[in-house]
Amino acid sequence: MPAAWESLIHDVPDYPTPGVMFKDITPLLADHDAFAAVVEALAAAGRDADGNVVVDKVVGMEARGFILAAPVALALGAGFVPVRKVGKLPRATHAVNYSLEYGEATLELHTDAIAPGERVLLVDDVLATGGTVAATRELVSRCGGVPHAVAVLMELTFLPGRDAVGELPLHALCQV
Amino acid sequence: MPAAWESLIHDVPDYPTPGVMFKDITPLLADHDAFAAVVEALAAAGRDADGNVVVDKVVGMEARGFILAAPVALALGAGFVPVRKVGKLPRATHAVNYSLEYGEATLELHTDAIAPGERVLLVDDVLATGGTVAATRELVSRCGGVPHAVAVLMELTFLPGRDAVGELPLHALCQV
Repeated sequence: MPAAWESLIHDVPDYPTPGVMFKDITPLLADHDAFAAVVEALAAAGRDADGNVVVDKVVGMEARGFILAAPVALALGAGFVPVRKVGKLPRATHAVNYSLEYGEATLELHTDAIAPGERVLLVDDVLATGGTVAATRELVSRCGGVPHAVAVLMELTFLPGRDAVGELPLHALCQV
Repeated sequence: MPAAWESLIHDVPDYPTPGVMFKDITPLLADHDAFAAVVEALAAAGRDADGNVVVDKVVGMEARGFILAAPVALALGAGFVPVRKVGKLPRATHAVNYSLEYGEATLELHTDAIAPGERVLLVDDVLATGGTVAATRELVSRCGGVPHAVAVLMELTFLPGRDAVGELPLHALCQV
């Protein structure tokens, strides 16, 4: 049985390009109970079977990833770290080029954002081609961090995103 | 006496352009206790003197505003609404052009994001020229919403942002 909040993810046909069915999560975010339930479910990816927090940092990918990852970090008592599009972080960064569903881009992470050995939960709204996740894993690793798991609200199962997640645990709250 | 978290806002000279002193909040976000304290302090702008929540929605401005506004919305039991850069929202939007510290831009809000009469807290990281706040106020008003207050982490007092806030209460956690 789908979670109550799933009906708050709305299909928008032909956005951003013809033939693409965009998944609009803004109705879900506007509903406090739904948003809170999603954050708690994503945060479970940062706990072990006994409920103990096992990550030091939660990384969110710009921009919609910030909306989910920041509350998840707070829920876990972990630090929040933004992975940003090129040119947005003011200090020394690692940078990785990647392909995304609708083109190409570069993501950056401050070189000191994650300390060597810190365990990191990656949070985003959608797992599509997996390009963003793969780039973020690489950025975390360049800092010396240890990717722990990937948590997403939605997995688009008609795209090969799961391959990019590799051996990491993938927590997808729903599949579309 | 400054709050403990103020030392976690780092000055980065000459970013994004020569002569500008950029305020980097990523060290603050990476520190759970500091981030949690800031969220709680911002959320106070959505409560009355008795601690009762008096807003229905919290609006965050892309992209750093998302990081603060989403947890503030959850803390208040309110819905979260993103104001986004042009072309990022998939359904019908209101759009407002505005000037910002380093150029010009357009912000958008879904036309149904806020119901008529809903009270709205605006949250962002920095109040600089106030262009973003003025545009967001206008977008909220076009939906029929009622701007309640503006809450920001930092007010740059050498810029005229406070003028854009007008008669709305401004909750700036620190001034620089």
